[in-house]
Amino acid sequence: MEGMAEFSCLQSPSFVVDINKVKQNAQQMLERCQELGVNLRPHTKTHKTLQAAEISTGKRKQGLVVSTIAEAKYFINGGFTDIIFAQPPSLTKVQVCAALVESVSEFHMLIDNVQHLYMLEDTKLLNGKHWSVFLDLDCGYGRTGAKWDVVGTLELARLIHQSESVDFSGVYVHEGNSYCQGSANEVTNISELTTSRLLEFTDKLECEGIPCPVKTMGSTPSCSLPAQIMSKITEFHPGNYVFYDLMQYYIGSCTLDDIACSVIARVIGHYPERGHMIMDCGWTALDNQSEMSKCVTGHGYIVGEPNLRIDSMTQELGKISAIAGKLDYEKYPIGTVLQIYPWHACATASLHNVYHIASDGVIIDKWKPVRGWVE
Amino acid sequence: MEGMAEFSCLQSPSFVVDINKVKQNAQQMLERCQELGVNLRPHTKTHKTLQAAEISTGKRKQGLVVSTIAEAKYFINGGFTDIIFAQPPSLTKVQVCAALVESVSEFHMLIDNVQHLYMLEDTKLLNGKHWSVFLDLDCGYGRTGAKWDVVGTLELARLIHQSESVDFSGVYVHEGNSYCQGSANEVTNISELTTSRLLEFTDKLECEGIPCPVKTMGSTPSCSLPAQIMSKITEFHPGNYVFYDLMQYYIGSCTLDDIACSVIARVIGHYPERGHMIMDCGWTALDNQSEMSKCVTGHGYIVGEPNLRIDSMTQELGKISAIAGKLDYEKYPIGTVLQIYPWHACATASLHNVYHIASDGVIIDKWKPVRGWVE
Repeated sequence: MEGMAEFSCLQSPSFVVDINKVKQNAQQMLERCQELGVNLRPHTKTHKTLQAAEISTGKRKQGLVVSTIAEAKYFINGGFTDIIFAQPPSLTKVQVCAALVESVSEFHMLIDNVQHLYMLEDTKLLNGKHWSVFLDLDCGYGRTGAKWDVVGTLELARLIHQSESVDFSGVYVHEGNSYCQGSANEVTNISELTTSRLLEFTDKLECEGIPCPVKTMGSTPSCSLPAQIMSKITEFHPGNYVFYDLMQYYIGSCTLDDIACSVIARVIGHYPERGHMIMDCGWTALDNQSEMSKCVTGHGYIVGEPNLRIDSMTQELGKISAIAGKLDYEKYPIGTVLQIYPWHACATASLHNVYHIASDGVIIDKWKPVRGWVE
Repeated sequence: MEGMAEFSCLQSPSFVVDINKVKQNAQQMLERCQELGVNLRPHTKTHKTLQAAEISTGKRKQGLVVSTIAEAKYFINGGFTDIIFAQPPSLTKVQVCAALVESVSEFHMLIDNVQHLYMLEDTKLLNGKHWSVFLDLDCGYGRTGAKWDVVGTLELARLIHQSESVDFSGVYVHEGNSYCQGSANEVTNISELTTSRLLEFTDKLECEGIPCPVKTMGSTPSCSLPAQIMSKITEFHPGNYVFYDLMQYYIGSCTLDDIACSVIARVIGHYPERGHMIMDCGWTALDNQSEMSKCVTGHGYIVGEPNLRIDSMTQELGKISAIAGKLDYEKYPIGTVLQIYPWHACATASLHNVYHIASDGVIIDKWKPVRGWVE
């Protein structure tokens, strides 16, 4: 890797973002959406930075999905508008959101239960402002969301539509099941099924005379390889694609070289009697999820070292062995710098309060993501 | 739970520490060590706060083990002395540690390879100060550490002893294998084996005329139920016991009620067609490790709700179902506050930049742990 010498100046572990890859990933998604004629509303949960949000909205600073109220506040303070808080709220959060609605031109709530609607109706906004609501629609993933095919969901849409203090802004679908698929074909199948169910529901809305201005769906797997039918919806909201990761590589969403984030670590110990070496990076810096990793290279992929496997991790240490043959300790003296692609970028990024920004291997900036939940 | 009403004021998710349980857990460990005649040098990796470090040292503010250089700096700045950085270093970290050694009366490095020794010897300290070194000894866990039973380890000890710029301060053992055991008996077996191997090695040192002032070992499982033979060593260095967690409860180190930390979440959605409800807490707040949980209650234990199971988690959401029978949604209306004991306190605490301190259920303070690695 060019410019690797510059990484050797970073303390370890550190989280590094390749700005050129971020720009390329963002640009490709913007172009893909333009070709399909759908709006792109990037989800910020993976990076949680103003810088990546600006890049991924093509500098429009408009139209985001956020996963926490802390993100919402941060992006509003950073000049972004038109934000969906993508989680059904408790009353406690409705009260916090009431203040946010006052502070930005467009702020949207996500609801899937009439109780949520009552909470919003009972929480008055200043100056006669209306709550803007997206209906969280479950098209088969089975986490949150009202089911697309039950009568009660249509009834909920009607109640939102008829509400005097709440506006019905659209339907929101998260097809998290696209993450579980083993191939690009399976992702396409999930995308097609999800889209057709979403359209089946919005067709019913139309028959009922309930306008649905926005139909938004899209995970990184489905939006990286969009099924043709997805051009019939109005908006995509993927998030992970800005960084990508090994999971997306295995799903088929990206190439290995598209992965824009990595963790820098160093070899700190040699244990030839046990056949491994140890690096100064454990689950506090790489992630806690890669137990589920499908990689032959274990808990991550060490760039340029396809024969090394990260076998296990404890809080601050990772154990590395050779996949084939004996580990060549002379090749990796104590102090050797390792660059690791993570299994799940959302999880790895969430562990770091500083991102070191690299361009052609040279560290050129630091980004500080927003952390916490409501603060 | 008394005073639970006060928790309902916290935003969710939040990390809560019961200060009275922390004090009780700390006091019990201090008394246990006093009875056995061993020094207690608490490991700070679980809590990473000045407050818990002060409590766990019995206000002596002396004698800690730290897992990162960021912790070392933080505790030195907070007035603590006599600190072991419990990770073999690369040269990059040796250079950072050189400055720390200058700033505190006692700062100890951990090494297990002659290369580490050379790095220290090549990094001169001001005013003729010597590096203080603990030899990282592997007594069967098999992560870092030089093996207790090989000739090279004794040779390494001799080289440290003979070094002109490095002092041999003692032997350090981490018996991480005590975490993997299924019962208190098995923990005792590991403790006995580890201790006897440690003593076998230090007996050899004695025969060789190499003084070993400190013999330090001890994980939370082994130190919570210490084997008799452990009184023959000089020092324990457990860390997790300040908080304890479900893993320690399953190992047998503590009672459920000893667990001093929890995560507060709220019910935000009802999905009777799918038999679950959703809370506003996912793996960013509860942890990424509980895939490995042995609990029948899944990724944590909801206090007072033994029939609820946390089935799965995504970034900000957790799925909850009933273990037996149907989920009674009326019992858990949207907004219901849940208090969750974590599977692994070290992992869960590491996700939070603020700890809300509770006494008898009333929030009385905030602690801010040190995060990052070297900064």
